[in-house]
Amino acid sequence: MNANNNTYVIGVDFGTLSGRAVVVRVGDGAEVGTAVHEYAHRVIEDRLPGSEVRLGPDWALQSPQDWLDVLRTAVPEAVAAAGIDPAQVVGLGTDFTACTVLPTTRDGTPLAFQTPERPHAWPKLWKHHAAQAHADRINELAARRGESWLPRYGGKISSEWEFAKGLQVLEEDPETYGRAERWIEAADWIIWQLTGVETRNVCTAGYKGIFQDGGYPSEDFLAALNPGFSGFVSKLGQELSPLGGLAGRLTAQAAEWTKLPEGIAIAVGNVDAHVTSAAADAVRPGQMVAIMGTSTCHVMPSDQLAEVPGMCGVVRDGIVPGLWGYEAGQSGVGDIFAWFVDNAVPASYARLAAERGQSVHDYLTELAAGQRVGQHGLVALDWHNGNRSVLVDHDLSGVVVGQTLATRPEDVYRALIEATAFGARVIVETFEASGVPVAEFVVAGGLLKNHFLMQVYADVLRRPLSIIDSEQGPALGSAIHAAVAAGAYDDIQQAAAVMGARQENAYVPDADRADAYDRLYAEYRTLHDYFGDGRMLHTLRAIRNEAREGSAGVSS
Amino acid sequence: MNANNNTYVIGVDFGTLSGRAVVVRVGDGAEVGTAVHEYAHRVIEDRLPGSEVRLGPDWALQSPQDWLDVLRTAVPEAVAAAGIDPAQVVGLGTDFTACTVLPTTRDGTPLAFQTPERPHAWPKLWKHHAAQAHADRINELAARRGESWLPRYGGKISSEWEFAKGLQVLEEDPETYGRAERWIEAADWIIWQLTGVETRNVCTAGYKGIFQDGGYPSEDFLAALNPGFSGFVSKLGQELSPLGGLAGRLTAQAAEWTKLPEGIAIAVGNVDAHVTSAAADAVRPGQMVAIMGTSTCHVMPSDQLAEVPGMCGVVRDGIVPGLWGYEAGQSGVGDIFAWFVDNAVPASYARLAAERGQSVHDYLTELAAGQRVGQHGLVALDWHNGNRSVLVDHDLSGVVVGQTLATRPEDVYRALIEATAFGARVIVETFEASGVPVAEFVVAGGLLKNHFLMQVYADVLRRPLSIIDSEQGPALGSAIHAAVAAGAYDDIQQAAAVMGARQENAYVPDADRADAYDRLYAEYRTLHDYFGDGRMLHTLRAIRNEAREGSAGVSS
Repeated sequence: MNANNNTYVIGVDFGTLSGRAVVVRVGDGAEVGTAVHEYAHRVIEDRLPGSEVRLGPDWALQSPQDWLDVLRTAVPEAVAAAGIDPAQVVGLGTDFTACTVLPTTRDGTPLAFQTPERPHAWPKLWKHHAAQAHADRINELAARRGESWLPRYGGKISSEWEFAKGLQVLEEDPETYGRAERWIEAADWIIWQLTGVETRNVCTAGYKGIFQDGGYPSEDFLAALNPGFSGFVSKLGQELSPLGGLAGRLTAQAAEWTKLPEGIAIAVGNVDAHVTSAAADAVRPGQMVAIMGTSTCHVMPSDQLAEVPGMCGVVRDGIVPGLWGYEAGQSGVGDIFAWFVDNAVPASYARLAAERGQSVHDYLTELAAGQRVGQHGLVALDWHNGNRSVLVDHDLSGVVVGQTLATRPEDVYRALIEATAFGARVIVETFEASGVPVAEFVVAGGLLKNHFLMQVYADVLRRPLSIIDSEQGPALGSAIHAAVAAGAYDDIQQAAAVMGARQENAYVPDADRADAYDRLYAEYRTLHDYFGDGRMLHTLRAIRNEAREGSAGVSS
Repeated sequence: MNANNNTYVIGVDFGTLSGRAVVVRVGDGAEVGTAVHEYAHRVIEDRLPGSEVRLGPDWALQSPQDWLDVLRTAVPEAVAAAGIDPAQVVGLGTDFTACTVLPTTRDGTPLAFQTPERPHAWPKLWKHHAAQAHADRINELAARRGESWLPRYGGKISSEWEFAKGLQVLEEDPETYGRAERWIEAADWIIWQLTGVETRNVCTAGYKGIFQDGGYPSEDFLAALNPGFSGFVSKLGQELSPLGGLAGRLTAQAAEWTKLPEGIAIAVGNVDAHVTSAAADAVRPGQMVAIMGTSTCHVMPSDQLAEVPGMCGVVRDGIVPGLWGYEAGQSGVGDIFAWFVDNAVPASYARLAAERGQSVHDYLTELAAGQRVGQHGLVALDWHNGNRSVLVDHDLSGVVVGQTLATRPEDVYRALIEATAFGARVIVETFEASGVPVAEFVVAGGLLKNHFLMQVYADVLRRPLSIIDSEQGPALGSAIHAAVAAGAYDDIQQAAAVMGARQENAYVPDADRADAYDRLYAEYRTLHDYFGDGRMLHTLRAIRNEAREGSAGVSS
């Protein structure tokens, strides 16, 4: 391994608003340089770039040009920041948001470059939610036909995924659908640009492309959705590439973009959450990694196959080859806290926080941390952005119970933090009740910096928390995959053990607090069951939607 | 009646923070002069005046000196403002908060003047809530013994009332209890000061003193509570005086205070809410007057006697002689909106309101008023200060259901307004279901100025709202009682018809909005039933109270 001390790999993390490149030493995982490129087009939500064409509600697009610009700018800047010779770089790996998917020609040219005036020609970002009606039809038909793949997704596929978004293109812009010779995850498209070779990675094919037991949904099933959709699978990849595998080698053109040596190893594409497991060295069965940010994604390898209610998906080899990879999620976490701070914290708090040189989040956290468990008298449901796991219902909404005239903002803030911890506990308990043990809970992501929140999770989960060492988990994870693809390690586990790291027992539960939380959690479960059937929350949403459409009169 | 155009009466309204005098023309009810005196001691909550003696939680006292000062200052100032000759004043009437009650000697001297260092010597303001444990025992024992008076109070007497507060004095300061030869409502004490005659009015005796069917709770019952309490009734009045009756005539000393002619008629004492019915000319069976402010009090005469679940009380002659007087209440209304504005509205809203020269309430109301019914997707329970009618449970708390990341402050504000309207509808429906018809809904009080809120009530109640004409309802009502006591009118109804006034059909329901509210109200009733049993809300409160007492560890 001595040579690894002089060789480097690069991990590139393509996020929602920017791409980050990190240069990592192969021999020990040291991060020696980094650079970020903000996407010029950010998220395209209102109208197409340079155009008056308006987008519908819930649309969210991206520009492929922004992704290429990350290769051109962030990669050479990271190498420069590291102060290494580009010749020392032996491989590059990437991770992407998913399902972010685009239509291209047979040679990989994005249709957005050919017909930029057509909304459906553009890449649909993961959070494009305008295909809900299509997802509903897919779920309904699959349930009716008893499709064997449906339970692998907790009983429902998401509007965010490849088939729902593809069906939307077909039905709203058949011409673009027809011209789309390929329907490809951005995770794979970027690899195509780097290597000149089209590959399809196991991870997005499994979690987002409904690839199960060696194949996609049947032509028969697709034809029943819409006769024009029967050949959809021909636009997808038929052969899948394993994670950590060698997708190809850097082309001359991509070498020109990145200023890296032509011919270095390029790893198979991957997803931001899933590569984080490697960065945390948490790629053994039962190691659940929770990437906690605006939302939380839970990924966990396991040697057990089970149908876990409400999981996002279980995919063979989906995190590391040889194991089942589970994914679950909480659709609102950090964004609930952000919403609260923006919409429900009075001026006096903003002023006091500013006087103390603190963010409002930090100030509220400090006040909340001074309370005893249950002192606020509240319990909340963390469904402000719906509930992915375990109820798989985006039409649920938030609930706060127990407010009095003495309730202060920090009380509600704390109750919301606790609610997300209770939500995490429901997920862990559901896995274990389904026969999939959770041996360790490992935290990554932006919420790590809130120590109070972490302690709440440890107390509520009644288990120690491990935390990832790196602040750039996805990019480091991609670099680890690059090291495997370059042949520096035999497999992801081996590379992760050397290059990834986590701190075990970083937060340890306090028995008294854990007991006190058990009582609040019992109330949370009661609320969860009461509101989880959606009777009231769906009714309120239906009334809301009708009112917005104007079927009721304006008040007073 | 010609003489009445040259004669005047004075109504004095003793509130929580100030007393107001209004000079009213007997012939037509015209309000010709007014003055306010702010109490120097305001509400005594932390420590006794001029003393280091600290009060316990939930204590609230007042100073009798402040009330006398109203007679000395506000009354002559009102006469001066009216520009009339004091000799034209033929009578004076008063109303008071209730149950505000004090211990005195046999001659009416407040014990607070004799032993000001003893907290229990002071008058206990209506919102003194430190006798809850005593009220609980009274209720428990009465229920067990099947006391016939209990259903007259909706099944529970309040910690605010005479017996609970008296029992607290006995058990916490037996010496003061022993020295208290009288236990008297401030409503009656002020009449004693004006006339030199001790009287007890039907209204407070009935609603606050458990006087039913000709008597108080039995000696036997009181002895079972505490042997030392058996003689409590001897401290109360045995003969009751009818509302609108002549309590006595202004003494020389009180004439000196008020600068009014000695010997003018002084009306029997009364309560702020109950006199308002006369001011609104709403003293016929089925005219429900809702005095809407920080909380709402509903008063209604009826010719039907029924046991209405959760009412505050039904008292023979309790509003006007010859009819049953019903009282119900919502324990939190305006104070919920105030709490929301103080604790849950962000700086940006405060800034925009200020730029527009509006209060935050007005700004939120304007935004909320622009919405369609149900557009916010929310439903709330208005129990932030507990629920008086119809659940009679001060340990309930508020609930907000349906929040999303798109929920804005005006959405919640509107949902809270609607929740209080739904709460009012529950009360009206409960009366009618119990066989007590509600013919007209008449609004008085500070919330009248919010036209949007009034329209919500009309739409939710599905009935037109009448509104009181006067902005000084209680003081005008007291003046009307003074006119009756002075013999200018035969009875309260006759006087109210001439001197009081309301505007009928001031707000008329819109059929479409009313239909839309019916759907939200159905959800409110579902929540009301689900949380109304107190299982979850009492558990949360118990956990909260234990945490405050320190039985659980401090978090992180």
